[in-house]
Amino acid sequence: MRILIVNPNSDLEMTAAIQESAVAFVGDRFEVVTLATPDAPRFLETYEDDVKSGPGMLEILREHESAFDAFVIACHSDTNLHAARELTTKPVIGIGEASMKLASFLGHNFAIVTTHQHSIPGKVVQIRAYHLQDLLVSIRAPEEGEEGWEDADLFMELSRRAVQEDGAEVIVLGCAGMAGMDRRIQDALGVPVLDGVVCALILASGFAHYGVGTSKVLGYNPDY
Amino acid sequence: MRILIVNPNSDLEMTAAIQESAVAFVGDRFEVVTLATPDAPRFLETYEDDVKSGPGMLEILREHESAFDAFVIACHSDTNLHAARELTTKPVIGIGEASMKLASFLGHNFAIVTTHQHSIPGKVVQIRAYHLQDLLVSIRAPEEGEEGWEDADLFMELSRRAVQEDGAEVIVLGCAGMAGMDRRIQDALGVPVLDGVVCALILASGFAHYGVGTSKVLGYNPDY
Amino acid sequence: MRILIVNPNSDLEMTAAIQESAVAFVGDRFEVVTLATPDAPRFLETYEDDVKSGPGMLEILREHESAFDAFVIACHSDTNLHAARELTTKPVIGIGEASMKLASFLGHNFAIVTTHQHSIPGKVVQIRAYHLQDLLVSIRAPEEGEEGWEDADLFMELSRRAVQEDGAEVIVLGCAGMAGMDRRIQDALGVPVLDGVVCALILASGFAHYGVGTSKVLGYNPDY
Amino acid sequence: MRILIVNPNSDLEMTAAIQESAVAFVGDRFEVVTLATPDAPRFLETYEDDVKSGPGMLEILREHESAFDAFVIACHSDTNLHAARELTTKPVIGIGEASMKLASFLGHNFAIVTTHQHSIPGKVVQIRAYHLQDLLVSIRAPEEGEEGWEDADLFMELSRRAVQEDGAEVIVLGCAGMAGMDRRIQDALGVPVLDGVVCALILASGFAHYGVGTSKVLGYNPDY
Amino acid sequence: MRILIVNPNSDLEMTAAIQESAVAFVGDRFEVVTLATPDAPRFLETYEDDVKSGPGMLEILREHESAFDAFVIACHSDTNLHAARELTTKPVIGIGEASMKLASFLGHNFAIVTTHQHSIPGKVVQIRAYHLQDLLVSIRAPEEGEEGWEDADLFMELSRRAVQEDGAEVIVLGCAGMAGMDRRIQDALGVPVLDGVVCALILASGFAHYGVGTSKVLGYNPDY
Amino acid sequence: MRILIVNPNSDLEMTAAIQESAVAFVGDRFEVVTLATPDAPRFLETYEDDVKSGPGMLEILREHESAFDAFVIACHSDTNLHAARELTTKPVIGIGEASMKLASFLGHNFAIVTTHQHSIPGKVVQIRAYHLQDLLVSIRAPEEGEEGWEDADLFMELSRRAVQEDGAEVIVLGCAGMAGMDRRIQDALGVPVLDGVVCALILASGFAHYGVGTSKVLGYNPDY
Repeated sequence: MRILIVNPNSDLEMTAAIQESAVAFVGDRFEVVTLATPDAPRFLETYEDDVKSGPGMLEILREHESAFDAFVIACHSDTNLHAARELTTKPVIGIGEASMKLASFLGHNFAIVTTHQHSIPGKVVQIRAYHLQDLLVSIRAPEEGEEGWEDADLFMELSRRAVQEDGAEVIVLGCAGMAGMDRRIQDALGVPVLDGVVCALILASGFAHYGVGTSKVLGYNPDY
Repeated sequence: MRILIVNPNSDLEMTAAIQESAVAFVGDRFEVVTLATPDAPRFLETYEDDVKSGPGMLEILREHESAFDAFVIACHSDTNLHAARELTTKPVIGIGEASMKLASFLGHNFAIVTTHQHSIPGKVVQIRAYHLQDLLVSIRAPEEGEEGWEDADLFMELSRRAVQEDGAEVIVLGCAGMAGMDRRIQDALGVPVLDGVVCALILASGFAHYGVGTSKVLGYNPDY
Repeated sequence: MRILIVNPNSDLEMTAAIQESAVAFVGDRFEVVTLATPDAPRFLETYEDDVKSGPGMLEILREHESAFDAFVIACHSDTNLHAARELTTKPVIGIGEASMKLASFLGHNFAIVTTHQHSIPGKVVQIRAYHLQDLLVSIRAPEEGEEGWEDADLFMELSRRAVQEDGAEVIVLGCAGMAGMDRRIQDALGVPVLDGVVCALILASGFAHYGVGTSKVLGYNPDY
Repeated sequence: MRILIVNPNSDLEMTAAIQESAVAFVGDRFEVVTLATPDAPRFLETYEDDVKSGPGMLEILREHESAFDAFVIACHSDTNLHAARELTTKPVIGIGEASMKLASFLGHNFAIVTTHQHSIPGKVVQIRAYHLQDLLVSIRAPEEGEEGWEDADLFMELSRRAVQEDGAEVIVLGCAGMAGMDRRIQDALGVPVLDGVVCALILASGFAHYGVGTSKVLGYNPDY
Repeated sequence: MRILIVNPNSDLEMTAAIQESAVAFVGDRFEVVTLATPDAPRFLETYEDDVKSGPGMLEILREHESAFDAFVIACHSDTNLHAARELTTKPVIGIGEASMKLASFLGHNFAIVTTHQHSIPGKVVQIRAYHLQDLLVSIRAPEEGEEGWEDADLFMELSRRAVQEDGAEVIVLGCAGMAGMDRRIQDALGVPVLDGVVCALILASGFAHYGVGTSKVLGYNPDY
Repeated sequence: MRILIVNPNSDLEMTAAIQESAVAFVGDRFEVVTLATPDAPRFLETYEDDVKSGPGMLEILREHESAFDAFVIACHSDTNLHAARELTTKPVIGIGEASMKLASFLGHNFAIVTTHQHSIPGKVVQIRAYHLQDLLVSIRAPEEGEEGWEDADLFMELSRRAVQEDGAEVIVLGCAGMAGMDRRIQDALGVPVLDGVVCALILASGFAHYGVGTSKVLGYNPDY
């Protein structure tokens, strides 16, 4: 079995980090390949970045559709996910949706730790689209003046606040760029910490083994 | 005051129909210009069409931003609306959001009449994103075998069913391509019938007169 | 076109302030008249005040129905709005509903600034009735000891807290008596600030131009 | 203990029927008095009727407040309930809210049987205000052509449809005028059938015995 | 009329306290008997405790079903309530559901005061199951370091915070073990304070007088 | 890796069918063992059956906790799931929750096909507990007179109705006893059909590989 992870941005360093984190989870159970989106912005930080990333993402998916068994969209905002599902009968999983829904199997609630206050309003919209607002205890992002912290320290501290001040039972890492921080925070705080790429791989590989994929009977069928 | 209507597809006939319907509403109160999106698909019927339409839409908006006072996105699925709002401090209104929210001021509930069963699941997602699901009594689309009907007869009949069988108090036309049918159905059935372009123009011109626009304090500020 | 603004209370000073603020928005685009409700309480602060205001409001509406094209109820709690809609086939818009729904086109969320802690529980009920609870980040009212502040300073400070502490993207003024404060707060804080009377005039005049009004097909038809 | 039932309309026959049904439930456990509202419309069928009923209702309540231990508003739309609660520290219970919330203790869901299709949209608004929409399986009112049926047969048949076609586990009678029909329908269909006046008396007398009443700490305190 | 209160735990002291509090409310209006569940854990603090309590609870109910007119489950988490309803056509009321739903008749909102932070996530699940989340302003439990306080002082202080800091209009005691504290807190803070056992007795006795019980037409009928 | 599937009932034939279906999915990727619950009822059809099954289920889990890496509860009502999670730091997955949440990754909505009308009200309660009600298009169970049909024909027909009449994009099999029917229905109707045991194994094995389990930081920690 082969799974393709599409990184919707063009940053090769983040692409490598995602691949590394994926391989660490997958081992030799199946094959996983991570591709950057060449014409996309280097990082996706705005709604316009999502738009600019779209055509390249669909091109990559179309080109490689037949060579893989399932697909992962490796941006926590699940950029262009509906369109990606339209292109194939195979499963297509976004890391945001996967991580937040899987969190609900491990605790009564979850918190999200993310990189910027700026992304919170859009994250709230996304969470409501998945009907998860009642499970969310908080979205923690750096406060003013904390943005210069070392990343590892910062996300550890945000996670600690979510657990101790907000009553979070599970931490969801809110950005693909945090790949690899899950284990360290989990060990320090003693709560499950979920990286979206791993969560999406669990579902993508599971569906591929099962032989089920995107429904083509109505809304995701472009030729209906 | 000048308002730009962006038709996210490239069909010139539909662009002209939207402009005609807009002018019929606006009269000489302000100026309105409708532009098609040259590189977009001829019609937007799939999620991929939305993706393909995005870069061209943003290009048009950026090019004309300084020359207009407010903007309307003339597709009932409100294609790429968040990204459009990011580009400007002026108001940007989608015809889907405008028509459905304005319907709630004229009756206790509303129904949507649309062109294909295929688009219903995505329309349901959109309605929930606007928190309007409790006001929706039904989405009526042609049943199997009815798709060959003359459009005017078909949408009249779907509207009649929504009112008489589903208890709808207001009809929302679910596609920019239905421009001009509002008055005829309203006169025949005796219920308010809303065309999205007109509804969006009400808001866009109102906000422009008022001097308020898209908030740049957090989520819609690309430079935050 | 002529629009009647009904002030549900009997205070002539507030009536004049509403009219002034309305004219400042409307200019010479259409005519607007604001009437106080003679037998109503001087200010509406309790549920009983709403009840006492009702008969007079309906009398005014019935007396002037034929002479105006649309109607605005100028109390942020939308006093007796359903009954007013029953009296006419023309549009009837409440300033509370108008301001909060219009806020949703300018930002991902909004906050309300209002005059008393006492009115918060009723405001929460009203917001849920419009399905807007997921968009509300906070209702800010003077804390204990702050009620003696100069109004202008107080509402500016409450708005500042809503933006900087609660993450509000849009401010909604929660009382018709705040007419005229919108621009000053908007200029100081750099966020859209909405006065309900202006928002309601946008809709009322828009619907009147469009030729749509209150649905009489079911729930708002007193003779059904 | 003495409980006052306020019938918000002026019909003496319905007032007597409510009193009869109340006494049948209460027996000699406590005293119950039903008063019509003299200046109110004969029946409350429109939103305007609710407005017209308000001042008289509050006058009755104020006049008799000290002589009773709890109060019931005997209209299924819970006319002017918030204002009534403001007038007293004693409990005030609406028969609509009481019957629908009590239904939820006897089954997984409920249906409402009511007198006119016309009242359905307003009933839906009311149900959402009580957060009960997820428990409602249907609102059954006479279909076109059935309005001339004998009442007893009609409401029996509507209840039967709710149980057998809609899966209702409990029937709520949606009008104070149906007082006395509960037992007959319950016996025929084998499901709990709730009359609002009885449900409100259960709560009003229970709260009075308990010594708790309307909270005056914030929103229901007119002198805050 | 005779009502059986089932205490799902085996603690005889708590059983006596519940009976005392019940009798104080009931007086000589009807008979009330409280039984402990012999094989159950001494206190129910975990989900496993609920499981262990179940068989004994059902045994008690089955043994005494014919001798009583209605039943109360005296644990605020409404342990095994659905199963208890299945055993009888008579009413079965849980004290958690009763207290929280009755709170909604006395104020716009309520807060819960409970014994441990640990029980908050499960309490949130329970509240959502009753569709009451929009009425809940806070769940107050002892903060770290406060658990050693004298109970009476602690719950008074938690209630005070709920009213003064969270805006609660009604206090719900979140544990059967708080029986008897309602009056003291109510007198001190001037807000309605609800003990679940009393609330459940109001409903159980009311339904028994009315002659309605658990619906057997579908989901609660074990022989369907 | 070893996963234990607990069948909450005592039927050995169903236990064998679940094991067979599990092995067909798992192959030699990991080890899976299915155990019946000896003292439980033969089938779980009532709420009381759930109660009776509880102590035995927890006993099995406690006995085998150290020998397995994750656990599956193989009843679609997710019997005693919260209590099972309390017993272990490893993942515990219910087949109902797993199948319905995984369905949401393959289509815009889903329908459930189940065995009896009787179980629908409880299923609705369960779906709301998972916040999935907005994704559910219908629960299909045999209509009156259809209960004698051959199972395979019956569930095929119910699935066909869900797709063609209700607009379902994914079918969820609502009972562990339907194990093995997924593929045949999927092939006939061309929609994804999900068996809960497979879905739960996807998650249980994925979490075990990942090294995350049930959060013990608050609500699921029995020793807190």
